Amino acid sequence: MPENPSSLSAKPSTWQDIAARKQAQRASLIPPEWTLSTSVLNASQKNALSPKSAWRTANILTPWELDLTDSHDATSLLGLLTTGALKSEDVVRAFCKRAAIAQQLTNCLTEIMFDSAIERAKELDTHFARTGRPLGPLHGLPISMKDTFWITGFDTSVGIAGFCFKPATENAALVELLLSLGAVIHAKTNVPQTMMALDSHNNVFGRTLNPQNNALTAGGSSGGEGALIAMRGSVLGVGTDVGGSIRIPAGCNGLFAIKPSVGFVPSAGQQGGSKPGASKLALEAVAGPLATSRRDCELFMRVVADARPGRFDADAIVPSWKNMDGVTQRNLTIGIVRTDGHVKPLPPVRKLMDEVANILGRSGEGIEVIEVDLSHILPKVLKVFNGLMSIDGSKTWFDHLAITGEPLSPWLQGRLVQRPQKTVDQIRELQAQRMELQKEFLRIWEESGGCWLTNNSIKTQAGRTLDAFIMPLAPHPILPIDRWNTVNYTASLNLLDLSTGVIPVRACTEEDSQGSVFNIKAANGWDQINQEHWTKVDLKTYVGSPLSVQVVTPRLTEKRLADIMSVVDVALRTKYNSASSKL
Amino acid sequence: MPENPSSLSAKPSTWQDIAARKQAQRASLIPPEWTLSTSVLNASQKNALSPKSAWRTANILTPWELDLTDSHDATSLLGLLTTGALKSEDVVRAFCKRAAIAQQLTNCLTEIMFDSAIERAKELDTHFARTGRPLGPLHGLPISMKDTFWITGFDTSVGIAGFCFKPATENAALVELLLSLGAVIHAKTNVPQTMMALDSHNNVFGRTLNPQNNALTAGGSSGGEGALIAMRGSVLGVGTDVGGSIRIPAGCNGLFAIKPSVGFVPSAGQQGGSKPGASKLALEAVAGPLATSRRDCELFMRVVADARPGRFDADAIVPSWKNMDGVTQRNLTIGIVRTDGHVKPLPPVRKLMDEVANILGRSGEGIEVIEVDLSHILPKVLKVFNGLMSIDGSKTWFDHLAITGEPLSPWLQGRLVQRPQKTVDQIRELQAQRMELQKEFLRIWEESGGCWLTNNSIKTQAGRTLDAFIMPLAPHPILPIDRWNTVNYTASLNLLDLSTGVIPVRACTEEDSQGSVFNIKAANGWDQINQEHWTKVDLKTYVGSPLSVQVVTPRLTEKRLADIMSVVDVALRTKYNSASSKL
Repeated sequence: MPENPSSLSAKPSTWQDIAARKQAQRASLIPPEWTLSTSVLNASQKNALSPKSAWRTANILTPWELDLTDSHDATSLLGLLTTGALKSEDVVRAFCKRAAIAQQLTNCLTEIMFDSAIERAKELDTHFARTGRPLGPLHGLPISMKDTFWITGFDTSVGIAGFCFKPATENAALVELLLSLGAVIHAKTNVPQTMMALDSHNNVFGRTLNPQNNALTAGGSSGGEGALIAMRGSVLGVGTDVGGSIRIPAGCNGLFAIKPSVGFVPSAGQQGGSKPGASKLALEAVAGPLATSRRDCELFMRVVADARPGRFDADAIVPSWKNMDGVTQRNLTIGIVRTDGHVKPLPPVRKLMDEVANILGRSGEGIEVIEVDLSHILPKVLKVFNGLMSIDGSKTWFDHLAITGEPLSPWLQGRLVQRPQKTVDQIRELQAQRMELQKEFLRIWEESGGCWLTNNSIKTQAGRTLDAFIMPLAPHPILPIDRWNTVNYTASLNLLDLSTGVIPVRACTEEDSQGSVFNIKAANGWDQINQEHWTKVDLKTYVGSPLSVQVVTPRLTEKRLADIMSVVDVALRTKYNSASSKL
Repeated sequence: MPENPSSLSAKPSTWQDIAARKQAQRASLIPPEWTLSTSVLNASQKNALSPKSAWRTANILTPWELDLTDSHDATSLLGLLTTGALKSEDVVRAFCKRAAIAQQLTNCLTEIMFDSAIERAKELDTHFARTGRPLGPLHGLPISMKDTFWITGFDTSVGIAGFCFKPATENAALVELLLSLGAVIHAKTNVPQTMMALDSHNNVFGRTLNPQNNALTAGGSSGGEGALIAMRGSVLGVGTDVGGSIRIPAGCNGLFAIKPSVGFVPSAGQQGGSKPGASKLALEAVAGPLATSRRDCELFMRVVADARPGRFDADAIVPSWKNMDGVTQRNLTIGIVRTDGHVKPLPPVRKLMDEVANILGRSGEGIEVIEVDLSHILPKVLKVFNGLMSIDGSKTWFDHLAITGEPLSPWLQGRLVQRPQKTVDQIRELQAQRMELQKEFLRIWEESGGCWLTNNSIKTQAGRTLDAFIMPLAPHPILPIDRWNTVNYTASLNLLDLSTGVIPVRACTEEDSQGSVFNIKAANGWDQINQEHWTKVDLKTYVGSPLSVQVVTPRLTEKRLADIMSVVDVALRTKYNSASSKL
């Protein structure tokens, strides 16, 4: 006699049970004909991005589908989709196949939506056939989203067992916006437990691997996005970032990305782990794009702005893209920030910054390069960031874990500790310090602000201002799994709420490690740990991994950021495209 | 033998001593030749705005100065100042004289800066003579500012005895911005004790009177600005508003005003009374203009935006004015909101809204008027507003008063009580409720949102949206001193952070009270109090006082607001200019 279903459901599940059921559910959503054999899996996993990787000849994608997914970015796909030259169904199916392969090789997905995505693609094709027009500027394009976003009918578990099998009943504001423009969402992507780890592992879905080198981290917290897009199982994905969670996985996977300022991209309707309203007292995570091309990041920002995002989320307050201030002058003044003053960059990062400064200064594009020293202010910024990141002493996350008694992920063990909740006065004081630091930081843009180090003694009367500054993504190259510690190079820009883009510059080479002496006395414990990434690691580990920079402009100047990223990217691409260090 | 000065300064002053010294200092800054005789004072005070008011013939202002200050707004003055047709010194002196008279008749000033203003005006004239060019778009224009703003060398006492004789050592961000554009600041203006009262009285400076009728309130908290500008001792002033503090004094004094959204006008560098950082947890006050013309409000917003305010205040995040979205379409859809659902409007306000709806609908400008019902949502908004206004249970203000043991102002007695401070969780929950209400409110703009009451059953497929809505400033006309209670008509728009303008429509007339029956059962205690403003007050009190409306557009759409205010103002002006109810 079968068990009574209600007594079955009443039986409390262990987190192990839930994880097993959730993973089985996920596996069941990959059609058998898209499943890699064990031998292909094993042969592909070390470097899934190699043009010779075994999965490419497994006949899951047709040659046409392989070429389509290999050679396009979102912009070029949309050029074909919005004119009817490509059918959405064909495009979406190709990317679903490739996402299925990415999932098998890197474990990057949480919710698989291939069926509903292909269904929607067909509807969009019908719309185009009937009207002769695309539904919107994202007509038919498959887009992936970090697991945090609500999508009706799918879980928003963010890898917490206690949140599984509780499908959302509403779409996130950004999901509504993207669908209104014609996008197709084909997958949600993996995150670390608590989203505060920098390696995307959780007890429900396991660990996302770096497709290029599974010894290195795929980054976090938007690590599933990073791996999926690097695998070209998606060309455009949405991550979120409160301390580096878009930028770090973009950097780990050689992708372009933008961390907007608060108020640009709708962020309402997510499982952020904290209680409703808490972000208003502390730091707000922002949503933004990860992509294979710089222009796709700009495309995302443009279509979001032009969709009047304030209709979807009262906190999204930007004007249309055409009405934003871009770069109008011919000559740019760009700062080079080499260190955060807390943890010194390792040799390949130092070398990268030298190269970038030289290339920009000699680009022939009229760029003036200014050395900028922020080492007096960024450590203070970090301190306030750390305070505001933990106003509840992590109590809420520990409560979520306690639902099923699941343990902390490896990265978090020893790092995440429950502390006393902050008082109103402590939070207020941190916000006051933040305001003071934002005020102090206004000066760094001005020649007269005391942060510019330059031999150029000629000063104009009005004084020059920086259009942007460039700084490393981190003080180290892409690290082995569970080793990424230092968020200061990214997190400081969240506390200051600056518009920030990531540009992958070149691969780390054998020459980066050869002959590099590194015997500077460590300034503090974090600096010591960072140095050990160089002195206690086989340097061959880093060869081939991407080195990236951040481009930073003032708060809510994303159009200027996009313009400057374009200039910088063109200058860097021109230099590196023929070099052996090409990504 | 004289007392030892150091022992003198060590002796604690009573608040009465401090107020006496502060008022004596203020009086000493008005030159004897600008002082009104007692007889002129007495003859002028009942209605200082009358063209026959005795001060006009006291020969303090020359006929040229009287005409200059009577007949210009800021826009027309700047047309003459920036072309060299007027000297700043002449303009500033004229407005200083008139401000001195305004002070004597209405007690509207706190800090008098006539000497430094005239000095700066001379420097600006020299600059113009030397370069042939204005310093900036506000070249030579005298501007007044609410006492809250720091101005180097002057107190920011906000009428608290314990804050007196502690001159600021730095300018507020907005002061820096306005000075960089060529403005001249000639006075700071009075506020209520704690800024949470709606009548501008404090123990240091006393009460600001309504220049048109000293039985009525001048409003608060920017009440000094309201009275000064109504007296034309300034044509353009800056107030601040967290629940109505710009709009209520504008309404009390028949002025135009804009309460921007948070993030438009720099607000850093003020004495807000709360501890640093507290506003980030609760509600942020915004700065905005009060003026004698609609175009001056737009001028202020435009020059602030075009000065790149983010250079002065990291929280000011707007693009340049030309790059903001304005109104592009020919036909406007404007909502009429008649009540906040909590306190019902009194007869003259109901009549005003009828008239405004009729005039706009028949303006020939293609305006579609839609009745909009917000009575289900605004009472909820008010509740959250009240919660967020008092997160510290008013402890900080009581601490400020305790410095010298000064008593509460009349308005606050019985209204301001020290309560327990809110916990982090209570504040977070209020912020969560605020986010929910902002989300719910997004629907009111859409035809499909369920708030439109219209007989027009024809619906377009895409659905129409409101461009703006118009609602009363308050559910009553301008009240006698210390009677204004209900901030809900203004405060709800702060919680929702909507762009809001005030347009004075017409004067309250004898007909407004004649024959008006008012026997609707009061819905609650506040409604009862409001009805008593009609049933228990001599209705002649209200005759001649201004009736105003608020024009409201979504968050950070100030250019659209300015465009729509223009259309509405022109339609109303065309109708009323020849009427007896002309303001």
